[in-house]
Amino acid sequence: MKTKTLKINDFRKEFDKFLRDHLERLMVCSSFSSIINYTPLTGGKRLRPYLIALFSQAIGLPSELYMKLGVAVELFHSGSLIHDDLPAIDNDDFRRGKPSLHKAFDEASAILAGDFLMLYPVKVLQELTINEHLKFLLINEWIRTALSIIEGEYLDVTYEPSSNTKDVNRIHRLKTAELFGFCFSSPFICADRMEEAKKMKETGLRFGHIFQVLDDIKDKLQPIEILGKTPGKDEKLNRPSILRFMSPEEALNTSEKDFKTLLENIEYPEVCEGLKKLWKLIVKA
Amino acid sequence: MKTKTLKINDFRKEFDKFLRDHLERLMVCSSFSSIINYTPLTGGKRLRPYLIALFSQAIGLPSELYMKLGVAVELFHSGSLIHDDLPAIDNDDFRRGKPSLHKAFDEASAILAGDFLMLYPVKVLQELTINEHLKFLLINEWIRTALSIIEGEYLDVTYEPSSNTKDVNRIHRLKTAELFGFCFSSPFICADRMEEAKKMKETGLRFGHIFQVLDDIKDKLQPIEILGKTPGKDEKLNRPSILRFMSPEEALNTSEKDFKTLLENIEYPEVCEGLKKLWKLIVKA
Repeated sequence: MKTKTLKINDFRKEFDKFLRDHLERLMVCSSFSSIINYTPLTGGKRLRPYLIALFSQAIGLPSELYMKLGVAVELFHSGSLIHDDLPAIDNDDFRRGKPSLHKAFDEASAILAGDFLMLYPVKVLQELTINEHLKFLLINEWIRTALSIIEGEYLDVTYEPSSNTKDVNRIHRLKTAELFGFCFSSPFICADRMEEAKKMKETGLRFGHIFQVLDDIKDKLQPIEILGKTPGKDEKLNRPSILRFMSPEEALNTSEKDFKTLLENIEYPEVCEGLKKLWKLIVKA
Repeated sequence: MKTKTLKINDFRKEFDKFLRDHLERLMVCSSFSSIINYTPLTGGKRLRPYLIALFSQAIGLPSELYMKLGVAVELFHSGSLIHDDLPAIDNDDFRRGKPSLHKAFDEASAILAGDFLMLYPVKVLQELTINEHLKFLLINEWIRTALSIIEGEYLDVTYEPSSNTKDVNRIHRLKTAELFGFCFSSPFICADRMEEAKKMKETGLRFGHIFQVLDDIKDKLQPIEILGKTPGKDEKLNRPSILRFMSPEEALNTSEKDFKTLLENIEYPEVCEGLKKLWKLIVKA
């Protein structure tokens, strides 16, 4: 049977509209609302919601459900980027080619918008139309993931360049890969398929590692016009990067091999097709 | 029947031990753990957990349950104070008579510890031993409260001194009173007494307003040695204060009247007794 694979560009348009509509219904005062909306609605590849949608479509989840899962993940991700960009952390004036939130508004707004966006996803998940037991399991997994990301960010900021690859991998797992683990597993939790959720979480963590390596390579090699944020930051800020231990070519080759092995663990051909296209898109960019 | 009222000093000792034990079991790396622990374990009156305990004891909730509810509220409160104190917001170098977290460590640590402490309570509530439906209702109420506090903080920071008392009251409701509403109502949610939860939430909101007025008075009149943080901040930072519209004496008199009316809504004599002692403690301080 030939299945149709969801295209990321089509999905992005649909998701952007869904996200905008969702944010319009936020019950906060209008000035705070503009600040909260700024980063989530300023571009973004919507990679994470796309991954959720790929798996969700493959197992027949309703679109209202997986779009909301995507909103939760994307808003948390935005909140975490807003805090990352602050002068006291990465001090980056640009994000997705536009001024970072603390440059477009001010630092106090950026701190509070980040706080809001990191907490708000719990509300989104609470409102999903799944039964209370599955919701309980999903929020358990979510809160564990979200706290891991914050710890990973702390380890990233306080990283000692004398660390070994094991330390770097741990930081990358917490900071980046855990959220991909959630994207790969959460559709299965919502479908009450816990064995698969567990397996796909592991696969998602591996995908997250590969994604982080590609990100490290891009940070080193890409100009700001393509990267949309200040390049060379990892080295300048002494941040953990796998490129301290191998060349970009070596890193890319290893990742490609890992990616191919990873695909063998996924039994849904349309998901594999989508991931392969995604790989090309990320490597090409 | 004569009931014994829980004394705040006895409770504080017990709660401090419970909180310390709880934080010791946090599964994060040790350096981040010291940063997370700093503010929650640096003093604090434990007023909010005490209020939860008062109501909980009156309706016979197990102590393990209400102590954890107290931990959730107190940790969120600490996280929110950490972000408040940051240079971009209140820029306060002192908290509870000790250096604020960003002075004791650094700003990046303070941002990330605040993020962690504001999210972590969801995990604490998820782990309560109540049934999944009550947990769902409790987390609904919690996340609504937490998001209100962040919005209130935003309104506080961007306050225009030309606003009227209605605006100031709204800010104080979101920023301060909502958390008291949760302290008053959450024991009843856990006990599946939803009608009372609703009624006590309203009473808690009124208590929160009174508390904020007393706080405004203290900010104006107390020296730093007693206040533990920099006094006169409301005026200096153009923050909303009820004292823009009335004298401290007038504010105190109105509050005292409001407090007496409020007590009439509470049918548990030991809770009223505890609240009266608390009132004396706050006014005297």
